[in-house]
Amino acid sequence: MKLIKKVNILIVGLGLLGGSYAKALKRLGFTVKAITKDKASVEYALENGIIDYGTTEIEPEIIGEADLVIFALYPHIFTEWIKEHQQYFKSGAVLTDVTGVKGCIVEHIQSILRNDVEYIAAHPMAGKEVSGVENSDDSIFKGANYIVVPTEKNTPEAIELCRNLGELLGFKQVAELSVTEHDKMIAFLSQLTHCIAVSLMCSNDSEGLEAYTGDSFRDLTRIARINDEMWSELFLSNKQPLLDEMDKFRASFDALYEKIKSNDRDAVREMMKISTKRRALFDKKI
Amino acid sequence: MKLIKKVNILIVGLGLLGGSYAKALKRLGFTVKAITKDKASVEYALENGIIDYGTTEIEPEIIGEADLVIFALYPHIFTEWIKEHQQYFKSGAVLTDVTGVKGCIVEHIQSILRNDVEYIAAHPMAGKEVSGVENSDDSIFKGANYIVVPTEKNTPEAIELCRNLGELLGFKQVAELSVTEHDKMIAFLSQLTHCIAVSLMCSNDSEGLEAYTGDSFRDLTRIARINDEMWSELFLSNKQPLLDEMDKFRASFDALYEKIKSNDRDAVREMMKISTKRRALFDKKI
Repeated sequence: MKLIKKVNILIVGLGLLGGSYAKALKRLGFTVKAITKDKASVEYALENGIIDYGTTEIEPEIIGEADLVIFALYPHIFTEWIKEHQQYFKSGAVLTDVTGVKGCIVEHIQSILRNDVEYIAAHPMAGKEVSGVENSDDSIFKGANYIVVPTEKNTPEAIELCRNLGELLGFKQVAELSVTEHDKMIAFLSQLTHCIAVSLMCSNDSEGLEAYTGDSFRDLTRIARINDEMWSELFLSNKQPLLDEMDKFRASFDALYEKIKSNDRDAVREMMKISTKRRALFDKKI
Repeated sequence: MKLIKKVNILIVGLGLLGGSYAKALKRLGFTVKAITKDKASVEYALENGIIDYGTTEIEPEIIGEADLVIFALYPHIFTEWIKEHQQYFKSGAVLTDVTGVKGCIVEHIQSILRNDVEYIAAHPMAGKEVSGVENSDDSIFKGANYIVVPTEKNTPEAIELCRNLGELLGFKQVAELSVTEHDKMIAFLSQLTHCIAVSLMCSNDSEGLEAYTGDSFRDLTRIARINDEMWSELFLSNKQPLLDEMDKFRASFDALYEKIKSNDRDAVREMMKISTKRRALFDKKI
């Protein structure tokens, strides 16, 4: 299958990411249908031209005509959905997703999935601090990374299709990682940073501090406004890689603490030099 | 003394902040002179019209004609400068500063200072990740906080003058804190965040992670590019308040770790809810 305009696309789960996918794909000229649990989301998306058709029901004919099905659901709901409704897929359909953790779903779903349907996992590393289709915005893909997460069960054709999707959506970079590499990377770059921001906000309940806040603190805690339902599931679904990264961070933080406590200025400066050098690699390339 | 254009201003230390003060004050029509250790900084500032006069020498007549002297030096250099050169100040001169820590300098300097000269401490909470007069930019004051840090030795007139300076420079808010309140606030809002960013960058040396970085990680580690000479001095000059805040953060981080480890999703969500609620207070008011 090539990603051309006659491909029928179905999005399951019309939240922030599902809606942003729909907006980008509609703009490119695709026909986009959606199934989502919330009636208000369907109405909003139809009224605003984000989708061509939407329903809150499991409609076998809508599922059965889709060539490409994009799942934008929480991990456990995604797995349940496949178990309950996979009989409706068109033979040869390709499934992909937006789930932020992979170890807990990819191999499991691939093992229970019909043999004539292929699931190729993907993680668009884009988001906002707000949720819902009302906040969807495909400009969040610009400058962001799209990670394809193939396993040995995937065909080169599906991997290629999934890469093309990332490119069409407007991501800055399309990359490939294994399930293990992906989950380790995401534990460090995304989940650990959210843990730090949440812990920082919970560590001090002094009143009135906001009056003195500068941009450093604001930038560091932006992600402390967090969708607790989604992120708690993501954390627990990726528990061991996350705990490993938390351990490493704590060791590093404790080392800095001891150097400050013992007035070892040279050792403090050495950590700062390492940090400065390493951080330079992460500057945004425009 | 009122802050009117005939007031002679001397800036000691022409780096990022000294240069930014000079730019703002020159634009307002003040005559601004500067003493700084680096010849290239003087030349750059003169060529670019940032100051009216500059020197790398301790020139008694330049110091002696200043009504307002602004110190933009590292804490220990500031203290040494006062000890060595305070005999040159004009009687009635007011001194202020930009130092990011107060406990280690304010009361000490006030105790050794001549009785006919007054030092009123201030902390402009603005900065950049780069240093030097070449990077000075008075637009960093917009939207930022300016903290006046008076003690019982200060007169209402000097406090008022210092507040006026913050307003003239274009800060969003001018506030007052005691030395102890200031150092505790700065330990949490500024120093702890820098400790976290440095520790995070030092906790993982995997190569190639930058290819997958999203904005969360980038925002959280922006301040990990750090002037190690300055910040190591600021950390050690404010050691106990900083260690106290580091202890509180670690306790909060450890609590989150244990909740994740024991799969206590409700408790994880509870921390996220507290964090979300508290972070909302810190949103930038435009």
